[in-house]
Amino acid sequence: MTEAAAAASTAQADTDTVRLTLDEVQALAERVLLHHGMSLRHAQAVARVITAGERDACVSHGVYRLLVVAQTLGRGRVSGVAEPVVTDRAPGVVAVDAGFGFSPLAFEVGAEHLARKAGQNGLAALAINHCFHFSALWPEVEALAARGLAAVALTPSHAWVAPAGGIRGVLGTNPLAFAWPRPGGLPYVFDFATSTAARGEIELHRRAGREIPLGWGIDDTGADTTDPRRVVQGGAMRVFGGHKGSALSTMIELLAGPLIGDLTSLDSLAFDNGDGSTPCHGELVIAFDPKRFGLGDAAGDAARAERLFAAIESQGARLPSQRRFAARAVSRAQGVAVARSLYTDILALLR
Amino acid sequence: MTEAAAAASTAQADTDTVRLTLDEVQALAERVLLHHGMSLRHAQAVARVITAGERDACVSHGVYRLLVVAQTLGRGRVSGVAEPVVTDRAPGVVAVDAGFGFSPLAFEVGAEHLARKAGQNGLAALAINHCFHFSALWPEVEALAARGLAAVALTPSHAWVAPAGGIRGVLGTNPLAFAWPRPGGLPYVFDFATSTAARGEIELHRRAGREIPLGWGIDDTGADTTDPRRVVQGGAMRVFGGHKGSALSTMIELLAGPLIGDLTSLDSLAFDNGDGSTPCHGELVIAFDPKRFGLGDAAGDAARAERLFAAIESQGARLPSQRRFAARAVSRAQGVAVARSLYTDILALLR
Repeated sequence: MTEAAAAASTAQADTDTVRLTLDEVQALAERVLLHHGMSLRHAQAVARVITAGERDACVSHGVYRLLVVAQTLGRGRVSGVAEPVVTDRAPGVVAVDAGFGFSPLAFEVGAEHLARKAGQNGLAALAINHCFHFSALWPEVEALAARGLAAVALTPSHAWVAPAGGIRGVLGTNPLAFAWPRPGGLPYVFDFATSTAARGEIELHRRAGREIPLGWGIDDTGADTTDPRRVVQGGAMRVFGGHKGSALSTMIELLAGPLIGDLTSLDSLAFDNGDGSTPCHGELVIAFDPKRFGLGDAAGDAARAERLFAAIESQGARLPSQRRFAARAVSRAQGVAVARSLYTDILALLR
Repeated sequence: MTEAAAAASTAQADTDTVRLTLDEVQALAERVLLHHGMSLRHAQAVARVITAGERDACVSHGVYRLLVVAQTLGRGRVSGVAEPVVTDRAPGVVAVDAGFGFSPLAFEVGAEHLARKAGQNGLAALAINHCFHFSALWPEVEALAARGLAAVALTPSHAWVAPAGGIRGVLGTNPLAFAWPRPGGLPYVFDFATSTAARGEIELHRRAGREIPLGWGIDDTGADTTDPRRVVQGGAMRVFGGHKGSALSTMIELLAGPLIGDLTSLDSLAFDNGDGSTPCHGELVIAFDPKRFGLGDAAGDAARAERLFAAIESQGARLPSQRRFAARAVSRAQGVAVARSLYTDILALLR
């Protein structure tokens, strides 16, 4: 692209987008959520997650989610006002009953207790029950890493994914997120679905009438298909990594489902009953306090982890989340650019 | 095959194999290990793991290991007599310093404390340090499931595996094992390497002069290769599942390495210093007591897990470890058949 073309393109982008500071994103999100009947505490917590998504250029987890949340709130199965109820289930386990509210407030309330228990016991678990999930899990494990804890977070979802060797949806897209605190502020962090592709990616292809890559899904006979409609209607998504990914996904079902007294992805899809709502189920978060685990050489342990990261990066491989972190730095300095059409749709939610 | 041919084949097999009861396998293994200077406690613990491997038809983890262990004991870096030292590192964390002994005794000693702590706290961790690993992890998570606990076990290994997008070995084959207790005795259990193939498989192909499938490894330029020698000499093994498998393997490095004050796979390979010994490093085991996690409906929770398993199996997909369990039933009834040449080599270890 020539400089002139690039300048024209930028001007075009400026016309089609609205630039907002992160504080403005947070305020806008809170306003929309309050307008749709959410309590202040819920609105602030959900808005923080939405702002983090927009900030990190995870567009599908940014302000776009306001359209989805507003619609879900209108349907009445999800509570926008339920106060999370904390129970000390065991010395190492805190449980939060979200009361069929959204996850961010339940997590924030539980995280305080989780961090305290991890500091006391070395490791601890947070079990969130009866919760409508809609955000990614990386904001949660990152929040724990910011407290100096390593953390793992797991949830089931809806039974859209066939086990390896199978042909019908049984497993969820079952995300696994992990964070490890690093010197300098930004953790080592990943958050991936145990399906080959995200559910949203398949939906996007379906709406756009585009084919999906081979390997993402199968049709109702179990055959690979590039037609996203056949995956969604009677077919199933594929797990990543074959039988190993399938086993890992099953572990997530068990630990974030029956272990904590909550639903599997099969149960959760049945509970949804065709509503097409955000999945409602439990979540398990495990936090580890490195200060309670090592042999007393915390600096040496941290240095060994850093040598591992350096050995990965020095050969041209990437650590996960680097794109998000790069976007974060830009967003903090310059704010974010929201598509004008989306911004208009969001403002319409305030009427 | 005709009946006559089948009978001839069986007779042939009978000539080439020695049939042993599981008690005889255990006694033989103990005798060899004691003869090579192992303490009685270590010999019994290692022999139990070897017997379990032979019983489950995991031939590379069965009596064949006696040849490897005898050789390793002769080299002097591993201790056959070190008494594991237990430290209560935190209310939720028990640590066992294996003192550069083999893992089975350290695990058995630690498992008692781990199970007690999990019952008290809901979940607990066992950190094993300074340990020579040679067994699979499934005997360990199965032992915890037999106590009614769900369990996860992780170790690094040696830096043979390239991260996704990389070309040099940094990660280990880093196994992840998980068990979930089921009614009736046999748990849901898996134990997989986070590399595409096991290290032993690549070695077997190399010795046999056979090509490996594409996807198992890369040469020193990072290109896929079917030559196992190029993988072992300057190349690297591949992670399973692309960047997701790579992230999971990195998590295992961190949790079973720096978190517990022990080595990464890079450190462990450096420690080995070309000896070609069994990897020496740490291990993290996490146990969850379902009785301390649920909402009070233990039967309902267990039933939800069983419905998940049924939904997997009813569509023709397999649960992991079923082949091992089938072999176990046969071995308990009929004993095991050990190749006569191997049996002769093992008896030679007693001279």
